Order: sequence, then structure tokens, then C-alpha cells
Amino acid sequence: MNRGSIDSVPSGPDSGRFPADQGFDNLPPSSTKPRFLDRPVVRRASTALERRLLQWFLSACGNPEIQVVLWDGRALACSRELPVGNILIHDPVTLRRLLADTEIAFGDAFTDGTLEIQGPLVEVLMEICRALRNAPMGGLFGRILNVARRWRSHSVAASRKNIHHHYDIGNAFYEMWLDERMQYTCAYFAEPGMTLEAAQLGKLDHVCRKLQLKPGETVVEAGCGWGGLALHMAERYGVSVRAFNLSHEQVAYARKRADAVGLSRRVEFVEDDYRNVSGKYDAFVSVGMLEHVGLENYPELGRVIDRSLTPSGRGLIHSIGRNAPQPFDPWTDARIFPGAYAPSLREMLTVLEPFRFSVLDVENLRLHYARTLEHWLERFERSTDKVAHMFDESFVRMWRLYLAASIATFKIGGLQLFQVVFTRESNNHVPWTRSHLYRDEVLS
Amino acid sequence: MNRGSIDSVPSGPDSGRFPADQGFDNLPPSSTKPRFLDRPVVRRASTALERRLLQWFLSACGNPEIQVVLWDGRALACSRELPVGNILIHDPVTLRRLLADTEIAFGDAFTDGTLEIQGPLVEVLMEICRALRNAPMGGLFGRILNVARRWRSHSVAASRKNIHHHYDIGNAFYEMWLDERMQYTCAYFAEPGMTLEAAQLGKLDHVCRKLQLKPGETVVEAGCGWGGLALHMAERYGVSVRAFNLSHEQVAYARKRADAVGLSRRVEFVEDDYRNVSGKYDAFVSVGMLEHVGLENYPELGRVIDRSLTPSGRGLIHSIGRNAPQPFDPWTDARIFPGAYAPSLREMLTVLEPFRFSVLDVENLRLHYARTLEHWLERFERSTDKVAHMFDESFVRMWRLYLAASIATFKIGGLQLFQVVFTRESNNHVPWTRSHLYRDEVLS
Repeated sequence: MNRGSIDSVPSGPDSGRFPADQGFDNLPPSSTKPRFLDRPVVRRASTALERRLLQWFLSACGNPEIQVVLWDGRALACSRELPVGNILIHDPVTLRRLLADTEIAFGDAFTDGTLEIQGPLVEVLMEICRALRNAPMGGLFGRILNVARRWRSHSVAASRKNIHHHYDIGNAFYEMWLDERMQYTCAYFAEPGMTLEAAQLGKLDHVCRKLQLKPGETVVEAGCGWGGLALHMAERYGVSVRAFNLSHEQVAYARKRADAVGLSRRVEFVEDDYRNVSGKYDAFVSVGMLEHVGLENYPELGRVIDRSLTPSGRGLIHSIGRNAPQPFDPWTDARIFPGAYAPSLREMLTVLEPFRFSVLDVENLRLHYARTLEHWLERFERSTDKVAHMFDESFVRMWRLYLAASIATFKIGGLQLFQVVFTRESNNHVPWTRSHLYRDEVLS
Repeated sequence: MNRGSIDSVPSGPDSGRFPADQGFDNLPPSSTKPRFLDRPVVRRASTALERRLLQWFLSACGNPEIQVVLWDGRALACSRELPVGNILIHDPVTLRRLLADTEIAFGDAFTDGTLEIQGPLVEVLMEICRALRNAPMGGLFGRILNVARRWRSHSVAASRKNIHHHYDIGNAFYEMWLDERMQYTCAYFAEPGMTLEAAQLGKLDHVCRKLQLKPGETVVEAGCGWGGLALHMAERYGVSVRAFNLSHEQVAYARKRADAVGLSRRVEFVEDDYRNVSGKYDAFVSVGMLEHVGLENYPELGRVIDRSLTPSGRGLIHSIGRNAPQPFDPWTDARIFPGAYAPSLREMLTVLEPFRFSVLDVENLRLHYARTLEHWLERFERSTDKVAHMFDESFVRMWRLYLAASIATFKIGGLQLFQVVFTRESNNHVPWTRSHLYRDEVLS
């Protein structure tokens, strides 16, 4: 055990500090300029104070099995002979920022390239997340953040701005790495090895079966993305759909597709907030919108569902969740999903309980989301040249971190994916068992 | 619409006030002495005040479509030509009690025979429950009761007394109307028409599959009844079981069965409180105990599970539940299940959330419990002579009301049955989908 001792990094590709077969560069950091960056290498050596502060900092972070390497090649070794990977800090300013404002600075430094990760990216992030979870200060910070975050605004205007930030950066970008149906939510892999296309189609059918859709029925969808589910329900299950979405780009895209497949008479895309849903429907469905609703609006979402469902109506809410209440980390909140929140299952139920909805079925698809994200990251990595051309290298690194960190978080259980099926209390026309969801799967 | 008008009851079996083909007596109440009772018929006529009070009372109860008939044959007609059934009140004292302390007095009067129900018992009770749910005063009373009931004691000593009250009234009694495995919890009917024996066996397998039991593993069971699940797990799934129960009679019975089938080396029955569970296990299971734990002990139950489960451990809690918090009615609390409480799903999750358990699956088997209870009531009715001989006629009527009212409540959605499957946050060895639960069902 040599935790905390300060070594210089062994040089050469065979230093063996992390498995070399991961397909990542394994060059000694002291001899390389940061990738993607065209700025001068810092010449001054790190000070004893800087290294001591970093050591204290790593201990407060739960001592992840990661080797941190400073700009002068000096490294803080961890207790394992083979750390999961290296973090390279390329200049003193980045180190100072990291110490002062860790959660924002880590992601920002990765984005601008002043911090690099050597080794298998997802595994390194998993190791950091695991260590943080057991860190002495983690719990308290989490609780303080949680209280603070609840007061973020989710007014109709603020929601519109939040949604615009993430979803209106260009359909062409998402087309590069999503499946052909543009499903930007967790897929359902009946078999772990199936393709993303098949698994996203599987998700659509899984949702439709859970909703027990029958031809001629009406469905309202809250948060419809690029319209894939709405079109699928209309085409394969013979229902009429009104689908709501705040993203202008997504709605325009969805309408075009509805026209192209001749479904615009049965699928209406409405560029509006879920709070403005009107009318009565046989089914309510929302896939991947609850994350943007904000806890304080859950009662209102419940009211919308309650006034929208017929007496025999069914509903399904599909959302990223948590095992216990916890906010998104500040970087994701600031840079990726402003105002997003992944509720615990208990928090999700505050949507339904005030209206005595009967929960029929809850399924947790956590590992399916990790698998979905692995497909996305793989496709994304194949398109980085095009993405860099469309935006820039920083954007590529930001999205790389976001996708890889999401995989890591689902894999260590920091995030869950809940599908909650419900109906009205008095509705006895519910399937006797759930075997109808598995007919194809079992026979195939 | 003649709500509230006072008629005298038409006489003769063909009066047609409720469907006559339900297999229940349809004799004009004015001419009959209460069944099962050997006491003088009241001669005096009902007063205008009595009838007016009763009318006000029925309106406060949400005006169920039931005809109430007084001891002198005068009836308060309801708005329907064919009411669901008649309630006969055989003397003025019973009426006074009903007005003063409805929820206790109704069940007690039914038990002692001073109140009778003519017509299909379950349907009449469903109609009353439905009306009460929409009654103007229902909500407020419910909330007050809910607060009051939380303070009932569930200390180890009080729990022992509560459990003794219901479960130690004699194994011979339960043997008359339960299945051969003595399952006194909701069965799982893969097909609605299957026998109770098959459906209870189906439930045991459904639970074991959800727990992913593997040969050689260890299981702790909290609240094991007569030991049916513990023995089944050991026999069919090759696991070792420690099963806890406070009921002396049930534990004695279970030990005898374990001896008889040669499983006493692998199944240990412990006559003790779940709070005294010690050791580490691969699975935690509790079927039908949470109802007796008391909300205030949910965190303690969570702690017990947390300290008992191995890192890859799985758990299942099977419990009667509600769509929203609500206490049991006072009669059930006083006469049938002292201290029992059916939690909402959100309340159930307070057991798991503090320990970051990951909920994998929630299934609601509400209609399966209605079906199970229909089997129990049918078997019970075939044994009433023996039950009356063992106890008395009042006991027969009390249990008839309890079973029939339970069917009614599950049917109208007043009660739910939740099976919640969970594991530790970090356990990734979970089934990829739930199709393994349905292999037999789909193929058969």
C-alpha cells in the first residue's frame, strides 16, 4: 500500500499501469502535449503544496484507484499496482479550478482538454463515481445540493428554454448516432446482443403492449421527441395520437415524417407544454419527459393525467430514476440538461398517488440503458470528425464525457430506468398476468 | 327517482327488488325472524324520527343503491328499481348503534345477527364501499383515522399479541378452507379458471423465480405462516431457509411438516420477531407480513434487510396495499386484524429507499386476491357447520363478512396486492428481462 506517495510516472508504453489493450493511448504524459490542444506545455514543476492539496483532495473523493499525473510528469500513485487509468492535469490553473469547484471544473477541463483521461474511459469514470459514493463528504454535499436544486424554475417559459438548450442543437447531429427511429431514450433489449435498431423497436412495442392499445383508441403523449413512438402507435396499433413537445426542431421533424408516411391525419404533433393538454384519451404515455418536469410540478402532471384519462384509461411513465433522492451532478445540470432531475421511484409516485391511480407494473431497465448508451457512444465515436466539423473538438469531448459518464452511472447503479404502468382505481379490465408482454420473446 | 321516500317492502318471493337467482334467501323480511337468531321479534313500529335519521345517515354514506328495511317492515327505498340488495335492521337498538358508531356497529350487528343482508353479499358490500368512497364525509374521517391509527403500538410484545389474535385461533379452522399448502396469502392464477391448489403453487413458484433462487443459497423469511413457502423453496429450489414467525401454533405446525417431509435439516423455523433476524442470506422474502409491521417500523425492517443481505442478495416483499394512504376500517382493526395496515406503494418504498435498494420489479395482483378470496369464501361456506360447532354461529357470520368484504374491497380497487422485488444498488447479476417468469405460462 503506497497510497499518497508521490512517484514520477514510469515512461514508455509498457509501463503497465493500466491494461494496454483498451485501445486508448498509453503514452507517458510527461512527454506528450495534450491531444486536441494547441497550447504551450507548462514548464514549471509542481510544488509540494500543490501535490499535498491534491492528495488531500483525492482522499476527500474516496481515493479512487486512479493515478493522477501532473503537468511535470509527477504522479500521485494509488494503492493498486494497476490503477484503472490515469488522469492527466495539464496545467496549474486546471488543478486550482479542480480543487475549488470540482464538479463543474472536472467536466469543463475534460471539455477544453486541459484534463485528459488515459485508459478505458467508462471504467475510469465508474471508479471515480464508486469512490465518490463512499466518500466522507459525498452524502452531505448531495443533500445540500438536492435542496438547492428543487428551486430551479420549471415554469412553462423556463421549461421551453431548458428543452431548447439540449434538443434544438440540430437534428442532423442526433441523426449521426441515434437509430433510424430517432429514439433518444432507453431501448429494450430482449436479448443483450441485439442491434440498437431492433432494441429501439422492441422498446416501442414493449410500451404499446404495456398500454394495451386497441385499434380506434386515442392516445396523448407528453414529450414526444422526434415522434417515433407516436408514429409507431398509429401505424402498428391503429390508434390516433396527439403528441406534445416543446422542442421546435423536433416537432418540425416529426411532422415531416408523419407526412412522409401518410399518418398526419391520425397523428397530431403539438408544439406546446404538457400542462396545456386538453381532451380525453384512452391512454397517456410519456417516455423520457419526467426528467424535465421538476419535482414541484409532479402534482400538476398528475392533474393533467387525471383530467385526460377516460374511466378505463391506462398510463405509462418511462423515466430515468434513482434508488434514493439525489440531484444530477452540477456539471450535467449546467452544461447538458439544465433543470433536469431523475426522481426516486417514491418521488415518481407523487405524480399518481394523489389521484388514487392504481400502479399495475413497475419495471427497472437500468442495464438496458447502459447498453443503449454503449451503442450511442460507439456510433458517436465513429462520427467524431463530422461532429467536430459541425461544432468543434470541445463539443466532441463534452459529449464523449456525457455519454461515457452516463454509461458509468447506470452500470454502478447511480441511475435507474423505471417504466411505471397505471390505470384508474376502478378499472378491472386489466390483463390477468404480464405474460402477453413476453409471448414473442419466449418463443423466439 | 324516489330516493328517500319511505315504502313498505313488497311481500312475497317474487317482489323482484333484487335479482332472485343469486342463491340467497329472498324472503320478505317483515315476515321472517332473523336467521341464526333465537330472540323475540320487536313488535313496536319504527318512528318518523328513526326513519328520518336513517335517511340522513344513508345520504352521508353516499346513498348506496341498497334498500334498508326496518324491523316493522318499513323500508327506505333507493333510486334504483332493482336495488343491489336489502339490509335488514332487526331492532331499534341496532339502528341506534349504527347511527352512533357505524363502522364498528355494522360488522358487530352482522356478526350477532341483528343486521342481515339479503341479496348477493359481495355485490351489496361492493355497492356500500363504492358509495362510501364518494361520500361527502368519507375523506375527512379517513384522514383523521389515519393519523390516529399510526400510533397503535407495534412493539415486539404488542406484535406478538396482535398476531396471536388472528393466527392462533386453531390450525384446524384454517385447514377447513385453505389449500393443502396452507397459503393464507394471495394466490397467482396464471389462468383465472385454475384451481386454488394450482394457483397457490403458482404463487410459490412466481415468488421463487422472482428471487432467482439457486441451489445451495440461503434464504431468510420474515413471517412464514404455516411454512409452505419455506418448505417449497427448500424442496424445489435446493436452498436453506431460516423462517421467522410470532405465531406459536403456526410454527409448531410448520416444524411438524418439515419433519414429515424430511426437510428439518434445511429449513429452520424460528418463533421470533423479524427484528431479531441475524446472519447473512442470499435472499430475503416476506409474504403477507408487512401488513402487521406498522408504518413506524418500516425503517427498522429496512435495517434488518440491509444487515441480512449479501452484496448480491435479492429481496421480495409481498403485501396488501393501497393506491393512497388509508387505514383499515375500524371493524377490521378491532375484530379481525388488530394493528394491521395496508400501505400505499409509496409508503412501502420507505422500507427500501433509505438503504438505496434498487427496485427491479413491482407487480400488482389485485384481482388475483379477489379470486383467491372467492375460493376461500366458497370453501368456508361449505364448512360452516363444522366452524359453528368449533366456535359458534356468530363466528361464522363474522368470518363470512370479513371474507366477503375483502372480496368487495379488492374488486372495487380499495385494496391492492403489491409484490416488490429489489436488490442491492451495485448488483448487476439481475435477469436481463422478466421473460423467465412466464416461460411455462406462455407455452402451456
